[in-house]
Amino acid sequence: MPRATEQVLKAMRLSKTPVSKAELVRRTNYNLATVTGHVETLLRSRLALEAEKGLSSGGRKPQMLVFNAEAGNIVGIDLESTHVRIGLTDLRCNVLHSVCSDDIDVAKGPIDVLERIKELIAGLLRDNHLKSSNIKGVGMGVPGPVKYSSGLAASLSIMPGWDRFPIADFWRRAFRCPCQIDNNVYTMALGEQTVESDVGSDNMIFVKVGNGIGAGIICNGKPYRGATETAGEIGHINIGHDTLCYCGNRGCLEAVAGGRAIAARAEQLARDGTSKVLASKLSAKQQLCLADVIQAVEDTDPTAVELMRNCGIAIGGVLAGLVNFFNPSRIVVGGVGSQVGDVLLASVRQAVYKNSLPLATRDLTIQNSYLGVNAGLVGAAILAADESVRHAFSIANAQCEREPLRPKKPS
Amino acid sequence: MPRATEQVLKAMRLSKTPVSKAELVRRTNYNLATVTGHVETLLRSRLALEAEKGLSSGGRKPQMLVFNAEAGNIVGIDLESTHVRIGLTDLRCNVLHSVCSDDIDVAKGPIDVLERIKELIAGLLRDNHLKSSNIKGVGMGVPGPVKYSSGLAASLSIMPGWDRFPIADFWRRAFRCPCQIDNNVYTMALGEQTVESDVGSDNMIFVKVGNGIGAGIICNGKPYRGATETAGEIGHINIGHDTLCYCGNRGCLEAVAGGRAIAARAEQLARDGTSKVLASKLSAKQQLCLADVIQAVEDTDPTAVELMRNCGIAIGGVLAGLVNFFNPSRIVVGGVGSQVGDVLLASVRQAVYKNSLPLATRDLTIQNSYLGVNAGLVGAAILAADESVRHAFSIANAQCEREPLRPKKPS
Repeated sequence: MPRATEQVLKAMRLSKTPVSKAELVRRTNYNLATVTGHVETLLRSRLALEAEKGLSSGGRKPQMLVFNAEAGNIVGIDLESTHVRIGLTDLRCNVLHSVCSDDIDVAKGPIDVLERIKELIAGLLRDNHLKSSNIKGVGMGVPGPVKYSSGLAASLSIMPGWDRFPIADFWRRAFRCPCQIDNNVYTMALGEQTVESDVGSDNMIFVKVGNGIGAGIICNGKPYRGATETAGEIGHINIGHDTLCYCGNRGCLEAVAGGRAIAARAEQLARDGTSKVLASKLSAKQQLCLADVIQAVEDTDPTAVELMRNCGIAIGGVLAGLVNFFNPSRIVVGGVGSQVGDVLLASVRQAVYKNSLPLATRDLTIQNSYLGVNAGLVGAAILAADESVRHAFSIANAQCEREPLRPKKPS
Repeated sequence: MPRATEQVLKAMRLSKTPVSKAELVRRTNYNLATVTGHVETLLRSRLALEAEKGLSSGGRKPQMLVFNAEAGNIVGIDLESTHVRIGLTDLRCNVLHSVCSDDIDVAKGPIDVLERIKELIAGLLRDNHLKSSNIKGVGMGVPGPVKYSSGLAASLSIMPGWDRFPIADFWRRAFRCPCQIDNNVYTMALGEQTVESDVGSDNMIFVKVGNGIGAGIICNGKPYRGATETAGEIGHINIGHDTLCYCGNRGCLEAVAGGRAIAARAEQLARDGTSKVLASKLSAKQQLCLADVIQAVEDTDPTAVELMRNCGIAIGGVLAGLVNFFNPSRIVVGGVGSQVGDVLLASVRQAVYKNSLPLATRDLTIQNSYLGVNAGLVGAAILAADESVRHAFSIANAQCEREPLRPKKPS
């Protein structure tokens, strides 16, 4: 896709309302003749459409133009260790259809898991009468570090067998389209930042509270990945407890406040008779998970509330230090843990405001994720959006070139 | 200073060796006629000089050009709570003359302190037969948060009376030149990053260990100041101790491992007879400071060594968490504390490698500051360099315009 065409198209994509050619001239700094040429190409490829005429500023009413977000779909995948959420979006990353499945176990290795996700995507397409050729790009978040630049999984202790597996290549081959992979805490952060761009998310810490705990960092408006692309691993920050973490260290935040740790503590409290609500859940399922504890909070079980509060205090304690260090304008709490709502959030806030310097929290906001459970899949689609649009254009353009030109209207 | 002139001059400044006009054309993308015009202006203003002729590539030997770093001086000031270091540099920020004075007490408020620094600068000029009009810019680091964008001191609990004092304006008036102010941990980080630019300092944490403990963050090659310009306040990260900090919280890193805390502990160990070396220092001075403990380490006093080791372990413990979060390529330890050399560094390294994820420390280097005690004043000069050079040019240029043009040589 020529750079100028892309810039004209991007100006349309980023505008929430239809734009005139005069407006595109203003936004791209190309002259009217150039813009007109690129608009023609984009109309021909159907990546742009003519909207209804705009208001006249004296002469003829201008022809308004819109980006055709329906010219293709993007698949956004949010993989967790035991479940996956998949969204089919338009080219503006609006979720059209989605599916969630909990028959996933990342420990089974990449082939099993990716094939299962492929089946789920096929089902999603079938149910909505779409062809796989509609897919113009795939974005995927995985629950651990990724070599973002190469689309390879990095060494993941919670994802055995995935080390250096070329995930991006798998999707490129499956749908003959571009693919971007990232740690899912980064896709979540990206989704949140993009959707909430008007509330000052330029320096943001997105904290994902799930079985593990991780952070996605937005620094000066862009995802910050660090020197070797492992930034944000806050789950393994030491908080001075004696609990052994699976990483081999003692006292990691995750070993105390991660979903697995909370569930284990909840089972203990169910067995020793402290909580009847948790006990009844345990007897029904043999095993508890973070979602069960959240359910118990909704059932107003004080033991579960205390568990989640302590979790928030521990997370907030670590965040307080990071607020002193990083001075963000915004902290967003997401992941399964944030589904418990204000119980976790209030204790996170309490610990941050108690332990951070007042100067650093002066304009800080701490909120639950606006996108909620969809943050990861929306962000994954956003991650792949630029490349997907380029791909959609090049396919459409190649098709146009095979077809005869439309006869010009007599002027 | 016209933008093009500045770019031609900057190309000369950044080159370590003399450059030809052809080389300037290549580096600036201006054509030869334009470059020649700007070079003429720069030679006339004496911001550029003709060096000896270069090697011929077939035709005449080219006239080589150099940036005239001696066309003015920059004052770099590194203020600490009880002392100040001042350097007079050339326009390339090479330190020509410097002075250190420990008759400073920031608690006396800005007027007292700044007037004293002005006297010291006057002495430095006098001793070296320089006029105050030689000064083309002032850069200053202060021991606390600063509104970098406005040159105002921010609310500083260790600098009472300085809140919102217009420090930059003071220097602008004193020397009729531009001035830049920053937290001195940032000037140190900037100095270190600029001088050590070839060893991968793009994502760096500079830790200053003095009476307080603070960090200067370089993120993607630039100083990162955070949403409200208070990033890097790691001295107030909670490390779980019970010690009361002057900020009002308990267990801040600084309250345990800062210079004041170490000196207080050293006095205790001197009084209770644990260390004879410290006791003899205490009896001579009535009061110990961090420098005394460092001196005792040099005297191979095991108690002092243990004190500094524990300090390193505490700092390293906090850094380990920040390494997980920020994944830097480089940690630099500076400030008075780093003068103790490998004792502190080794224990910082030990704690970082013990508590960080192996993935995040794969390519991490942890070193003492290369610039040592000069890091702050060199960085302060660097902070002011661009503006100083612009100022030097505009003064020189105005002078040229008042003087008659040199008669053109007959061609």
